[in-house]
Amino acid sequence: MTIWPGGAKCALTLTFDFDAETNWLSRDPANAKRPGTLSQGTYGARVGILNVLSLLREQSLKGTFFVPGWVVDNRTQRVEAIIKDGHEIGHHGYWHKWVDPDFPEQELEEMEAGLHALKSQFGIVPAGYRSPAGETSSNLIRILSEKGFLYDSSLMDSVDPYYHCLEDGSRGPVELPWHWSLDDAPFMLFSIMSPRPIFTNEHVLSIWKAEFEAIRETGGLINLVMHPQAIGRPSRMTMLRQFIEFTRGFGDVWYATCSEVAGHWARNNKFDPADCAINPFIKV
Amino acid sequence: MTIWPGGAKCALTLTFDFDAETNWLSRDPANAKRPGTLSQGTYGARVGILNVLSLLREQSLKGTFFVPGWVVDNRTQRVEAIIKDGHEIGHHGYWHKWVDPDFPEQELEEMEAGLHALKSQFGIVPAGYRSPAGETSSNLIRILSEKGFLYDSSLMDSVDPYYHCLEDGSRGPVELPWHWSLDDAPFMLFSIMSPRPIFTNEHVLSIWKAEFEAIRETGGLINLVMHPQAIGRPSRMTMLRQFIEFTRGFGDVWYATCSEVAGHWARNNKFDPADCAINPFIKV
Amino acid sequence: MTIWPGGAKCALTLTFDFDAETNWLSRDPANAKRPGTLSQGTYGARVGILNVLSLLREQSLKGTFFVPGWVVDNRTQRVEAIIKDGHEIGHHGYWHKWVDPDFPEQELEEMEAGLHALKSQFGIVPAGYRSPAGETSSNLIRILSEKGFLYDSSLMDSVDPYYHCLEDGSRGPVELPWHWSLDDAPFMLFSIMSPRPIFTNEHVLSIWKAEFEAIRETGGLINLVMHPQAIGRPSRMTMLRQFIEFTRGFGDVWYATCSEVAGHWARNNKFDPADCAINPFIKV
Amino acid sequence: MTIWPGGAKCALTLTFDFDAETNWLSRDPANAKRPGTLSQGTYGARVGILNVLSLLREQSLKGTFFVPGWVVDNRTQRVEAIIKDGHEIGHHGYWHKWVDPDFPEQELEEMEAGLHALKSQFGIVPAGYRSPAGETSSNLIRILSEKGFLYDSSLMDSVDPYYHCLEDGSRGPVELPWHWSLDDAPFMLFSIMSPRPIFTNEHVLSIWKAEFEAIRETGGLINLVMHPQAIGRPSRMTMLRQFIEFTRGFGDVWYATCSEVAGHWARNNKFDPADCAINPFIKV
Repeated sequence: MTIWPGGAKCALTLTFDFDAETNWLSRDPANAKRPGTLSQGTYGARVGILNVLSLLREQSLKGTFFVPGWVVDNRTQRVEAIIKDGHEIGHHGYWHKWVDPDFPEQELEEMEAGLHALKSQFGIVPAGYRSPAGETSSNLIRILSEKGFLYDSSLMDSVDPYYHCLEDGSRGPVELPWHWSLDDAPFMLFSIMSPRPIFTNEHVLSIWKAEFEAIRETGGLINLVMHPQAIGRPSRMTMLRQFIEFTRGFGDVWYATCSEVAGHWARNNKFDPADCAINPFIKV
Repeated sequence: MTIWPGGAKCALTLTFDFDAETNWLSRDPANAKRPGTLSQGTYGARVGILNVLSLLREQSLKGTFFVPGWVVDNRTQRVEAIIKDGHEIGHHGYWHKWVDPDFPEQELEEMEAGLHALKSQFGIVPAGYRSPAGETSSNLIRILSEKGFLYDSSLMDSVDPYYHCLEDGSRGPVELPWHWSLDDAPFMLFSIMSPRPIFTNEHVLSIWKAEFEAIRETGGLINLVMHPQAIGRPSRMTMLRQFIEFTRGFGDVWYATCSEVAGHWARNNKFDPADCAINPFIKV
Repeated sequence: MTIWPGGAKCALTLTFDFDAETNWLSRDPANAKRPGTLSQGTYGARVGILNVLSLLREQSLKGTFFVPGWVVDNRTQRVEAIIKDGHEIGHHGYWHKWVDPDFPEQELEEMEAGLHALKSQFGIVPAGYRSPAGETSSNLIRILSEKGFLYDSSLMDSVDPYYHCLEDGSRGPVELPWHWSLDDAPFMLFSIMSPRPIFTNEHVLSIWKAEFEAIRETGGLINLVMHPQAIGRPSRMTMLRQFIEFTRGFGDVWYATCSEVAGHWARNNKFDPADCAINPFIKV
Repeated sequence: MTIWPGGAKCALTLTFDFDAETNWLSRDPANAKRPGTLSQGTYGARVGILNVLSLLREQSLKGTFFVPGWVVDNRTQRVEAIIKDGHEIGHHGYWHKWVDPDFPEQELEEMEAGLHALKSQFGIVPAGYRSPAGETSSNLIRILSEKGFLYDSSLMDSVDPYYHCLEDGSRGPVELPWHWSLDDAPFMLFSIMSPRPIFTNEHVLSIWKAEFEAIRETGGLINLVMHPQAIGRPSRMTMLRQFIEFTRGFGDVWYATCSEVAGHWARNNKFDPADCAINPFIKV
């Protein structure tokens, strides 16, 4: 069981993938000709992100925002507003591309382009990375390590944080795992080409609360993954407020940014190469 | 915050896309050989639209009906019944086609054919347009402007109305945004080729009420998008009645047609080119 | 408003498409090599149909069973059990094929093969027809008329029964419409290749009850479409019993077979060619 | 009605398909390049299986684990932990492959490879088999018979156990049927490429309890199919505990492994070739 600061029983990270239009473009380039579909992403940049920032101010909480380089370069004022409010900015690729791991030079290119955008626009060197759609590779984990990243937050193979193992057996960045059931998109991101069910607030709250309660029992990390274009809808902001207030009722939650969680965890846990036996970078 | 007439706290538009069979034909031309699938659209014209008109009379409310030209030309008596009851008629293409924006001459053709149908059958020049399936283009927005349309209602990038920006930086028509969660089709339009979940009235009401309440708080526009073939089913009419009565309970809702909302909003808001920075007409 | 026998306010038909494996085979011929998928259909013949017959005996109700010729020829004892209990048998194609309406000779072939199976195995000439998956054609309606069918039950373009119109403008068979929301399959028929959500009994009952109540209000026909492989699961039989008991509570429902409903309706309604204007057999 | 030991009214088998990454790899080989998707499977091996074993110890219950040979060879310590706790291990293929039944030599190969893994790693000769994704063939049933398997648990064509019939009309292994509604995966296994709805605990419990109660009434077998990567999530373990406690409340449930159930059933039931008439191994 992880020991959290101040005797907290669990850690809660409110994270936001600020994709704007890029998630639609990366999933299907033909969406570039579908402004109706894209406009859900546009909502994230135009309205959703402002709603999210407003709620975080109201709740005096700091979030972690994973921002693709394209959004940094093209929605610069919005990213500036996030930074001004003191939130953490993480790396989220440049084009939100799913790079085929057989093309490691493209992985590097996306990584460099995203780093460059954050550096040149805001002088930021991010401590963390989340891969678009959660797809990554052992090569990318190596790149993260070489670039000095403290943590990655892309995989679903654990609830508690863990150290990545590099191919040479040495210690890689901390992983802060997530899961679809603690994401907003599977419950509310609809398009005609991908007609997922749109669920009620009660439905999502039931799942989020149940995961929160069960993870809290074991002292783990509740890593909530949200998207301004989804959670930023008026009624979903109400839901997020209700969820936060539900967690406050326990009185023993550490609300933190991802780099705070990763840093604390790394200071309190040693690397054990034996833990490398099971990981999703399969060689078939 | 928008100021609505008579001190109303929010505006509610009841809109109906009266597609009849055209939504099935435009999504997959092979549906022309599937009368079972098409018959859901036929229901809209045969029965659904009559149920909708009856409910609006009972509730003394005016709706906005977006009607493809094909429906105007082939279900003419039904469209006449809508007009007779004093509702607004909007443009909804001719064939409910998703025109590829790389073929602007087809966009113009659909536009002209829809205008011609309304003009020749009923002498109507529509003030508003909603694109089939919400897909549109910056070229189409320009066409709307040239044709003198007051408003468009196709995109999801905001909750409040806003002015479109033409490519030359000048003011375009008013946009009245919508969202899938305030649409009926994602919750009840099933076909074997597109097997969406069929949700309960309680489910849909939960989502519609939550969006209504949250948008009302900020003084916005609740733009409900319905389809006679979906909402016109017996039990769904019961649901719509319940939703309307729920909104009446607040005592501060302005029930209006889209052109009333767009006109009021345009009279009270100035165009600011700075608002053009974020829009879904992406150049990649 | 239709007038039903004995002052009943509405009519309820309990219909069962006894497809066994044929619905899986017709949807995707590759399913012939997937016994796991097929075994859901096998359940219908092995167990489901017996459960259904048992419930109908318990409730002293007569159902209408639409049976493909292949099932008549290969699950003959099961069909015999249905007949023994006094239920109505309707035509449901031979192979449960979706025939392309561009091949009218195949439509005739399926029709003849289904008729032959019922005639040769049981001496039955069916009064009614339901097309596989609801897909049909104006040619098939003509065939039904020539073969002397009293009714068809394939389309979703109305709630009340109506007369089909033949291409020469004369009266065709009675249509007894249905709708996906009064079907069991969209709520519970899962396969990996077609992973529909599996809904709770409460969910299905909410939808069926709401449709029942709203159709009853207008004196219409509630035409419930079920499949022994779906509704025949143990917990779904409990649900159907609950639904039947719910409808009994109203005290004014006419429980009838499809041919009883079609016959009664035909005796009380005149054919009006003007009603032919709107139908789903679209010429594009 | 089956007679269960000690006057129990029904039998309940808690079964776990311990696929780890293999279910993702077998469904789409391209998943080998999607570690994000694979990491759900990895979770099963890294965390989920430990949670499951812990719950079974807490509840003093024995489960049945169907393990692909690849998992036996690559997650050997985890399989050892299952065995140490006294649970039953069943055969689940080697690669969790859906073998095309037109290639019987591949069926044999998968079978031999899975047997070899269990034998060489742990000296185990399994009494039971569950086919990956439930797809199998009459040839595979014959192989099971020749290899001396007591039971198969792959098909959905019954609720009660039954004897398989070999092609020569003789008695094959016992079948312990299952159904999607008593599986965890349809309710919670999400991926972008296969975006199933993620349902609440209340939803799943409603369906599982309803099936349990209805099957118990007829004295049948409730054969629960779970996956450590799905049921092993923190909140889903809570749900499984609640389900087990719900069933304990009846006081007349026989909790058993699959081989206990199959053995008991075989000792109390005679083979009747007449039961072979209806089965899903269709010759078209």
